[in-house]
Amino acid sequence: MAESFIKSVTYENGVLKILDQTKLPTITEFLEIHDIKDTWDAIKQLKVRGAPAIGIAAAYGLLLGIKNSPEENFEAFYTDFKEKADYLATSRPTAVNLFWALKRMDERAKLESHRPVREIKQALEEEAHFIRREDEEVCRSIGEHALTLFQDGMGVLTHCNAGGIATAKYGTALAPIYLAKEKGWNIKVFADETRPLLQGARLTTWELMQAGIDVTLITDSMAAMVMQKGWVQAVIVGCDRVAANGDVANKIGTYGVALLAKAHNIPFYVAAPTSTIDMETATGADIPIEERGKEEITHGFGKQTAPDGVKVFNPAFDVTPYELVTAIITEKGIIKGNYEEELPKLFS
Amino acid sequence: MAESFIKSVTYENGVLKILDQTKLPTITEFLEIHDIKDTWDAIKQLKVRGAPAIGIAAAYGLLLGIKNSPEENFEAFYTDFKEKADYLATSRPTAVNLFWALKRMDERAKLESHRPVREIKQALEEEAHFIRREDEEVCRSIGEHALTLFQDGMGVLTHCNAGGIATAKYGTALAPIYLAKEKGWNIKVFADETRPLLQGARLTTWELMQAGIDVTLITDSMAAMVMQKGWVQAVIVGCDRVAANGDVANKIGTYGVALLAKAHNIPFYVAAPTSTIDMETATGADIPIEERGKEEITHGFGKQTAPDGVKVFNPAFDVTPYELVTAIITEKGIIKGNYEEELPKLFS
Repeated sequence: MAESFIKSVTYENGVLKILDQTKLPTITEFLEIHDIKDTWDAIKQLKVRGAPAIGIAAAYGLLLGIKNSPEENFEAFYTDFKEKADYLATSRPTAVNLFWALKRMDERAKLESHRPVREIKQALEEEAHFIRREDEEVCRSIGEHALTLFQDGMGVLTHCNAGGIATAKYGTALAPIYLAKEKGWNIKVFADETRPLLQGARLTTWELMQAGIDVTLITDSMAAMVMQKGWVQAVIVGCDRVAANGDVANKIGTYGVALLAKAHNIPFYVAAPTSTIDMETATGADIPIEERGKEEITHGFGKQTAPDGVKVFNPAFDVTPYELVTAIITEKGIIKGNYEEELPKLFS
Repeated sequence: MAESFIKSVTYENGVLKILDQTKLPTITEFLEIHDIKDTWDAIKQLKVRGAPAIGIAAAYGLLLGIKNSPEENFEAFYTDFKEKADYLATSRPTAVNLFWALKRMDERAKLESHRPVREIKQALEEEAHFIRREDEEVCRSIGEHALTLFQDGMGVLTHCNAGGIATAKYGTALAPIYLAKEKGWNIKVFADETRPLLQGARLTTWELMQAGIDVTLITDSMAAMVMQKGWVQAVIVGCDRVAANGDVANKIGTYGVALLAKAHNIPFYVAAPTSTIDMETATGADIPIEERGKEEITHGFGKQTAPDGVKVFNPAFDVTPYELVTAIITEKGIIKGNYEEELPKLFS
């Protein structure tokens, strides 16, 4: 991949660089962040989005918070460290990956407690980089496995944004598209705009265009026609959670796309880091579906486009039953067939 | 139906009243039009939309143009009449119903040529009212036939707007919903917002709410989930053209809805005045599909929501193959089974 690959979160020489996703797709702007307060703001204001990217930003933000700590004994340093970590945790209290990353940093700090503070700081920087690299490797592995299911010249449809800018690099569903580009393959992507929040229109098209990948934007209602025309040979989407039976919760509209794929005999793939596979959740019926505000639908484009007082149903996610999922692609390999039997093997 | 039923085009005491559909759904405003120039403007500026409604408005607009004609012999009057009709025809040169209505008025003028101009004017007013009433009767008949397929308490999903405000009254797909309301039935309607132009969000919800009908707005991508939940027992849509084999061209997204209905064993009905059934078109493959500007998708309603230069596919219509159509409901009755055999009987 060209060096120009857009990375949404990087850290170099004590500066955290974050792609400001709130300005996409019209303005490409990287924020240079020098302190923890600005990191807190960037997370709070959704300038960084995507579970993995938020976790990485938090780890680096914590570094910014402690790098100039004057404390020289561990106890005093750790008190300062904990205070900063607790502060960052308040930036987006529902983001699981934020807490996960801060906990990883905390464990590393404690592990190094016997060393001088200067060395602990170095170890923490290592840990933050490691969190980022680990995510990049997970994404790359998903991409490599997925790529075995793709061919040069294929048309691929995707829904929402499970892309590079939500992760360290590559993304999950989009990883094989980037790897195909690295191989010189010509993949033609169709991106559902993904109402109501238009992640497909705003983010997926943008990041694929940055990488020079052939992408065509359609409304969600055009996916069926694009399949009918024979332009699509595979669908690939990300996911929020996979249940133990293989049911998949993902962005609203995914279930419909899976049904359309089946009607046209097109394989429907789900890219899922093992961290999203929840063996504690028996089936999709056990996954709570968040309902969001009606304004996302009635005022979607900044202008009111539905009557005052109209009733609205606005679920954020839907559940695709396992029967419609051709394969689940994880960093550890491709899972097919009887998910109830196959998924536990990933964790044994 | 209550007297308050919204009619998009009426004519009384020399005044043409048009519901300004460009201001919906936020402002309900009726234009009172007194001359042909303002009628031309209203059609041109899409203040009146829907093929039947445009035809009715044109017929009334022509009345406004000739009602004060000072000519007393037929030749001179007819010259004036033709000039006004030709002028109105330029307001929207692609609207077939506009020409059809003007031609009806022209034929009536010629038929009455032996009578005094004063009486010809009366006959033309009769003809314009007749065009409106005829459309209302067609819509009502479609509604009555469709209602035999519905039950009290049902959930019905519709796409786009094939409603009362596009016609004289009742609409086509929405006609049975209004008639169910007249009967005191409780039908729960789900309206797809219908990207890109949001006719469902802007118009369908609005007109059903005016009539006190229970309607819930969803994005197109939520139709599958609403069906999965068991909330929908029938889908009904309008159409732009029905081919001789029963293939149906309608607003983009209709084909996808038909596939989703089939996957959930929900009947998929098409409301089609016989005027939209085109026996000269063998199959859907022979129906040309208009592609529209990319701005409809990238700049939805005023704000840019996709990158500069993004590739877009924006077909205005799609074709639903006859196998997915449970029944075609016309003003002459319900057509089912072998469309190639059944449709010609409508015209014999």
